[in-house]
Amino acid sequence: MIALAPVLDAIDKNLDRSLERLFELIRLKSVSTDPAFDPEVRKAAEWLAADLRSIGFDASVRDTIGHPMVVGHHDGAAPDAPHVLFYGHYDVQPVDPLNLWTDDPFDPKIKTVDGRKVITGRGSSDDKGQLMTFVEACRNYKTVHGALPCRVTILFEGEEESGSKSLKPFLEANADELRADFAMVCDTGMWDDRETPVICVGLRGLVGELITIRGSDRDLHSGIYGGAAANANHIMARVLADLHDETGRVTIPGFYEGVEETPSQILESWNRLGQTADDFLGPIGLSIPAGEKGRTVQELTWARPTAEVNGMWGGYTGDGFKTVIPAEAHAKVSFRLVHDQDPAAIRAAFRKFVEERIPADCSVEFQPHGGSPALQIPYDAPIILKAKAALSDEWPKPAVMVATGGSIPIVGDFKHLLGMDTLLTGFGLDDDRIHSPNEKYEFISFHKGQRSWARILDAIAAK
Amino acid sequence: MIALAPVLDAIDKNLDRSLERLFELIRLKSVSTDPAFDPEVRKAAEWLAADLRSIGFDASVRDTIGHPMVVGHHDGAAPDAPHVLFYGHYDVQPVDPLNLWTDDPFDPKIKTVDGRKVITGRGSSDDKGQLMTFVEACRNYKTVHGALPCRVTILFEGEEESGSKSLKPFLEANADELRADFAMVCDTGMWDDRETPVICVGLRGLVGELITIRGSDRDLHSGIYGGAAANANHIMARVLADLHDETGRVTIPGFYEGVEETPSQILESWNRLGQTADDFLGPIGLSIPAGEKGRTVQELTWARPTAEVNGMWGGYTGDGFKTVIPAEAHAKVSFRLVHDQDPAAIRAAFRKFVEERIPADCSVEFQPHGGSPALQIPYDAPIILKAKAALSDEWPKPAVMVATGGSIPIVGDFKHLLGMDTLLTGFGLDDDRIHSPNEKYEFISFHKGQRSWARILDAIAAK
Repeated sequence: MIALAPVLDAIDKNLDRSLERLFELIRLKSVSTDPAFDPEVRKAAEWLAADLRSIGFDASVRDTIGHPMVVGHHDGAAPDAPHVLFYGHYDVQPVDPLNLWTDDPFDPKIKTVDGRKVITGRGSSDDKGQLMTFVEACRNYKTVHGALPCRVTILFEGEEESGSKSLKPFLEANADELRADFAMVCDTGMWDDRETPVICVGLRGLVGELITIRGSDRDLHSGIYGGAAANANHIMARVLADLHDETGRVTIPGFYEGVEETPSQILESWNRLGQTADDFLGPIGLSIPAGEKGRTVQELTWARPTAEVNGMWGGYTGDGFKTVIPAEAHAKVSFRLVHDQDPAAIRAAFRKFVEERIPADCSVEFQPHGGSPALQIPYDAPIILKAKAALSDEWPKPAVMVATGGSIPIVGDFKHLLGMDTLLTGFGLDDDRIHSPNEKYEFISFHKGQRSWARILDAIAAK
Repeated sequence: MIALAPVLDAIDKNLDRSLERLFELIRLKSVSTDPAFDPEVRKAAEWLAADLRSIGFDASVRDTIGHPMVVGHHDGAAPDAPHVLFYGHYDVQPVDPLNLWTDDPFDPKIKTVDGRKVITGRGSSDDKGQLMTFVEACRNYKTVHGALPCRVTILFEGEEESGSKSLKPFLEANADELRADFAMVCDTGMWDDRETPVICVGLRGLVGELITIRGSDRDLHSGIYGGAAANANHIMARVLADLHDETGRVTIPGFYEGVEETPSQILESWNRLGQTADDFLGPIGLSIPAGEKGRTVQELTWARPTAEVNGMWGGYTGDGFKTVIPAEAHAKVSFRLVHDQDPAAIRAAFRKFVEERIPADCSVEFQPHGGSPALQIPYDAPIILKAKAALSDEWPKPAVMVATGGSIPIVGDFKHLLGMDTLLTGFGLDDDRIHSPNEKYEFISFHKGQRSWARILDAIAAK
């Protein structure tokens, strides 16, 4: 902490110049999906490599089968300093429809909106503003101390908004160079009170199955066969209804193997966020949590597995009525997995569960989709506890550890290809309008984001 | 019976000439759906009116808003003779694709197929051949006795194959003229052993509902909301699965009110038909009766009500996967009704049943379809018993009383507009290829059909 205070001061003092660098980066129109912008994408990569070199990184632009990567290395102050891999992406989404933008998306400005200072422009939040918080934290640390507290490898991708086709091959081809003690990704947001930083420690996994149930060999006239012939819709409805019991639990045998109960202090930290079921469900027109009874919406969405029928269809679905007994019924069912649930085991258990409900003269066919386990860092992992303390020192409210149901593929790639856990935090806000017209990044996100990273690097390096 | 024998002899003796008249009628191309054939449709009507007049009917062609009706009246031998209304239709289906016909559809022939004599041509079975069995029975009765045993009104329609738009208005406008003690319709078939005549005493009714269940006000990302937000597909699956219990019974309270158990002698007559579940379900790729346990396929399809999910859909149904929580799910559910089940009561009970399964923050909307009660003539009604005995005397095996699930609208119209029950019998066979190329009518159907009607008219008139 003795080392940290002057770094934070330097960040505060150099904020205008850090902002000017972010503006330079935003002005480069690095729209990765449109080949017309290829030269601008490369310019952004070269700009970043040069900027990293200016801090003392051994940085270069690395060609791929798609847009180039930027990779930079910097030693830590001590030979045994922790080694971190920081990931961000310098490409941006297209700006269409341009007429909905109040300001030029590639001419960033500081504006005051609803009494808050914001930085405007495409990529201001996603992900140029976010990644520069880390770069500026490193720069100020280096300026003050002539060294970085950790050994730092940086990887900036230029294809995140257009499919990341080069990413896996690049990670595989350069695994030894990129592997670190853990990764850091700054591409997520804060709790929506704008005062509570968030660390995402869990990503739910996913297993999906398309099931097709077949009864008779053709659609039947329900007048002639109704009451005697199997109706594929009935069998499907039974299968789908049986997936949950009356308490909302998934009934597939073995489904909850590998699911851990959430520690009570974590549950309490979620309760302290003050988000009620009405807060969460009200905006989408609902009010009653529909999953496992007796658990909060946070626990349900962050720490519990689910079974969802994403689609189902069978029989006549057009206008009017056709009194058929359908020969086939279909459903797309997916499971969000947590903790140590095994996707293969759940797929097998689900198939058995369905097969047991198919009459002997009917049949079922399965088509697999996805199959990724959850990624969960223990709530008490040292990196998480250190980062949590560091973030809590910076922001008005203590950091909260959450999980997310959406997938963030890079985190899985780091885990499976490089064997690293990821510290996932960021300073975006829900209303940053990423991917939309009038994207912005809060000035306070950019400022306190830099200070947050300085604190995190410092905390991680501390013995 | 003294009066009957010479009539049957006359039928046998005059068979060639009756066949020639049927051929004349088939040669008239009375395709009702195609305006190009309008003059031929009228010619067929005029031919029939003239033919009825030749037997002594007071018969005429009656204009309607569409194709004309033929109406004829003939007194019975006794002033108190029963009055019957015989219905048939003289229009036919189009013949396309013509190249699939072995013989000219409008140039009828006698051919031998699989060792059996058949009459070829469009309408040979549906319904010209069938209706002429009745006309020829009347002609021979009249020739032998100079009178008919019953008072007979005949109604021939020219739009049955194209929507029957004139039928209801015509019945309503001429109700007093057309109302009889009961109707006779010859537009159905025999049991498929070609030796067992069939009387259809029950037509299942129909009630349908389109239900739409609504949860959230938009489709949701299952990663973010899964486990906490109501899934309309889940609610729908529960509703549909709950419709039947594990014994196959419909669980809607009050659903079986008005349903009568089938008399044991009727069940036994159905068992004697020797049709197994495999016989019935095998041709459609099934083998296990799916409805109420412990009942035969005949009872299930002829004498029991059903609930069928004719269509259901919700969420993403395209290629690949989209892990949405759907805002809406839909189903088309229909009920086949028997005996005295009340369509309105069942609709109301079903809606209540669904509403009870909708969470308080979700909603359901209903859209009604159909709503017709079953039509059931008591198995022991005198007309039925007399016709059954008459048919059993004519054919190698006793007549069997069945019901049908498909609707025959004219029977409902006679019941509801004219207050008459209908004796529904006929001599078609399942392989007559009605509506298809190479339509045929068995020579034996035409011959023994005439004898059957002579016997029925005679039996009905007997004190």
